[in-house]
Amino acid sequence: MHYSPLLTDLYQLTMLAGYLEEGMTEKAGVFDLYFRTNPFEGGYAIFAGLETALDYLEALRFTEVELQFLAGLALFKPRFIEYLRDFRFRGRVTAPPEGTVVFANEPLLSIEGALAEVQFVETALLNIINFQTLVATKAARICLAASGSEVSEFGLRRAQGPDGGLSASRAACVGGCTGTSNVLAGSLFGLAVRGTQSHSWVQAFPDELSAFRAYATTFPDSVILLVDTYDTLKSGVPNAITVAQELRERGHELQGIRIDSGDLAYLSREARRLLDESGFSNVRIVVSNDVDEFVIESVRNDGGLVDIYGIGTRLVTCSGAGGGALGGVYKLVEIDGKPTLKVTGDVAKSTLPGKKQIFRFVEPEGRFIQDVVCLHDEIIKGGDTVFDPANPLRYTKLPPDSRITELHGEVMANGRRLAAKETIAVMAERCRIELSRLPHGCLRLINPHRYKVSISDRLSCLRKDLIDEHGKREG
Amino acid sequence: MHYSPLLTDLYQLTMLAGYLEEGMTEKAGVFDLYFRTNPFEGGYAIFAGLETALDYLEALRFTEVELQFLAGLALFKPRFIEYLRDFRFRGRVTAPPEGTVVFANEPLLSIEGALAEVQFVETALLNIINFQTLVATKAARICLAASGSEVSEFGLRRAQGPDGGLSASRAACVGGCTGTSNVLAGSLFGLAVRGTQSHSWVQAFPDELSAFRAYATTFPDSVILLVDTYDTLKSGVPNAITVAQELRERGHELQGIRIDSGDLAYLSREARRLLDESGFSNVRIVVSNDVDEFVIESVRNDGGLVDIYGIGTRLVTCSGAGGGALGGVYKLVEIDGKPTLKVTGDVAKSTLPGKKQIFRFVEPEGRFIQDVVCLHDEIIKGGDTVFDPANPLRYTKLPPDSRITELHGEVMANGRRLAAKETIAVMAERCRIELSRLPHGCLRLINPHRYKVSISDRLSCLRKDLIDEHGKREG
Repeated sequence: MHYSPLLTDLYQLTMLAGYLEEGMTEKAGVFDLYFRTNPFEGGYAIFAGLETALDYLEALRFTEVELQFLAGLALFKPRFIEYLRDFRFRGRVTAPPEGTVVFANEPLLSIEGALAEVQFVETALLNIINFQTLVATKAARICLAASGSEVSEFGLRRAQGPDGGLSASRAACVGGCTGTSNVLAGSLFGLAVRGTQSHSWVQAFPDELSAFRAYATTFPDSVILLVDTYDTLKSGVPNAITVAQELRERGHELQGIRIDSGDLAYLSREARRLLDESGFSNVRIVVSNDVDEFVIESVRNDGGLVDIYGIGTRLVTCSGAGGGALGGVYKLVEIDGKPTLKVTGDVAKSTLPGKKQIFRFVEPEGRFIQDVVCLHDEIIKGGDTVFDPANPLRYTKLPPDSRITELHGEVMANGRRLAAKETIAVMAERCRIELSRLPHGCLRLINPHRYKVSISDRLSCLRKDLIDEHGKREG
Repeated sequence: MHYSPLLTDLYQLTMLAGYLEEGMTEKAGVFDLYFRTNPFEGGYAIFAGLETALDYLEALRFTEVELQFLAGLALFKPRFIEYLRDFRFRGRVTAPPEGTVVFANEPLLSIEGALAEVQFVETALLNIINFQTLVATKAARICLAASGSEVSEFGLRRAQGPDGGLSASRAACVGGCTGTSNVLAGSLFGLAVRGTQSHSWVQAFPDELSAFRAYATTFPDSVILLVDTYDTLKSGVPNAITVAQELRERGHELQGIRIDSGDLAYLSREARRLLDESGFSNVRIVVSNDVDEFVIESVRNDGGLVDIYGIGTRLVTCSGAGGGALGGVYKLVEIDGKPTLKVTGDVAKSTLPGKKQIFRFVEPEGRFIQDVVCLHDEIIKGGDTVFDPANPLRYTKLPPDSRITELHGEVMANGRRLAAKETIAVMAERCRIELSRLPHGCLRLINPHRYKVSISDRLSCLRKDLIDEHGKREG
């Protein structure tokens, strides 16, 4: 995926031109990228998109054609166009690895460098991280609801544009999907690709049985038959059983059937019974059709017998309460070595100033206790008092006998990534383990337990001091 | 925008391999692309994405690298990979032009050609048309709510991936937005690009007034100042007025101010008053911050004085009831010259068989009366009886003295587009005119009037005959 540097908001360019005029392009700046509310009214988010973001930062440069387009806008001076010709990202990035469980108000990326460079990359970084983190989180919710069954992503046709589909397939697999229908995503990210047939395949033959036989002839070892074109239980499953018998006689096995409409709990139970009675308990049942975590929960509660869920629309568009978009923001927290913040009427809604780090407190046996956001040069330990970022009057003491891990690592310095790319499989495994270490209540789909993210005493005081100072200055 | 042919669901490829095995690739097929429910629980949709779709169809071919990837899946025979080497789309497409008002159950695209070719393009066509039509519709709803004010699209950072942002910017302008913040979309589609500053610009200076002055120095003729970093009415607007006065002394005019938080109705009224009292009634007020059609309605009802709405998240992610995804489908309606359908238990939910055309009945003075979907070789006229597609018992007589227009035109033959590309401005103007000709009740945001889309007697009978015939065959 190549990102043109023009894939940005115009104001990034006008601000850069302004910084150049003012001689401020090389001032030191630090930005935090974070979100303010967990998506889907849920208890956590899964961080995703980092490698894509690093690709973007490493490759950032303007081509001659792009510079000519900007010159043609009659907005910028020639000096600024010349400045862009050598523009690169040479900054430093810290972040957790992809697949990490993260929470509202925690910096996902911290970006340090020359003000012009760290400002310019805002739009693309938000675009990449917001969407992939949202999809990975939705996928994790769906996969947890389905646990014991596999989940495959089938959403390309309903995705928001072609790359909406690509990013979604990638992030869905970070969050726990074991395959995708999207062939390009498979080729780019090394994901398993999956597929059955469409109703039009069945319609293109004189009858359903001929359609099934034809498919089984072409792919004797990877047949999943779509059984709901005419009547799932009266026609589709019996015809699939006929083909399964014919395949077995030739030394092959039918892999599965797919049900794409109707009462998925009832039809999957009945299909299972018919298959088992005919000696095909090895044939797997795939269901699709507007499935999400809530539909899965209800299908399971009603005794549905599903081996694989195929999830399309509701995964790639991240439907659901608080879904659709992750409201990630990108805020300046330090300028010229000095912490800064955006003041608002409500202290709790002010941004958290300064360059930071995040510590996670973990029980000896591995369960996560809580996170603490603090300044980059602080040492935090058990017994320290920390504060609710939304309410400075609420505080808590950190537990003494806990392990402490640091969430962020340095992933880019001087504009170059510091380690080889991880595979999606590694990220997915990390996600699985991290979710198993969360307090169980955080995993509830509705009204989950709120995992505690505190801020250190020093960070809390710094915020208060800056707000006071600001009140005095602006009156 | 280049679409790789791998940007597809795996099953398109496995079905193609099956058709090749069966000697069916060249069988004649016709598919309809349509949706079943108007998006956003609204009264209409705006068709968009056609030119993008035609670009995809014209350029469709597999590169050597893509063929090697497919060969490496260990799923396909060499003969199939060879077949793909010369694979092109050579079919015919009919469609309305972009910006046309369309409704549920009307084919948006009809695709005719060799079965393998018309099948293969399903995923990409759905991806393109679903999303762009959804965004254009959302934009039309927002622009109608704002009518009298301008609407600009600012959503790239919250869009679903980079091309989610690109497609969204394009479609938003088809639906009525007059500009975008997305520079790449501006360069690719000839859209006006717009921008102000971010809060970080203001924070990067010692105080707000210095920040405003610096921006005004760089762009004296295109300054829109972001006034809500500290306090909109006590600090932001007064500082903006100071800069406006300084600009005027130097022969320039401040273009606008932007409010990005707080009570938009109240703040815009008060800002307007302060500006007017200081002699700056020409300075325009831009508002942003999670705005959509419902927020605009409430801001206007409460006396808000807004010149330009900047719309981000809720436009590009198409939030709202029935939003997030347009459930467009792609159904085989004719195979080998014979009409076909997908049967379901409910007659009303069966697909509409056969190659079709759509007629729109229009009052002599131009207002739309109703649409009729019929078979491609039918002649429909005033006085004819037509049927509700969801209920064959409900019928209506077409009005006698109406003009009749045909919605679809041939846009591609033998895989080549038949006319030069339209500009987005032409599509946007068409959209504006078409919306003004709809029965007014169809434009309501909530519980709109349902515009009538009927099917002809022959189409209704054909569907019934095919369902009966099918019932006899499959028992």
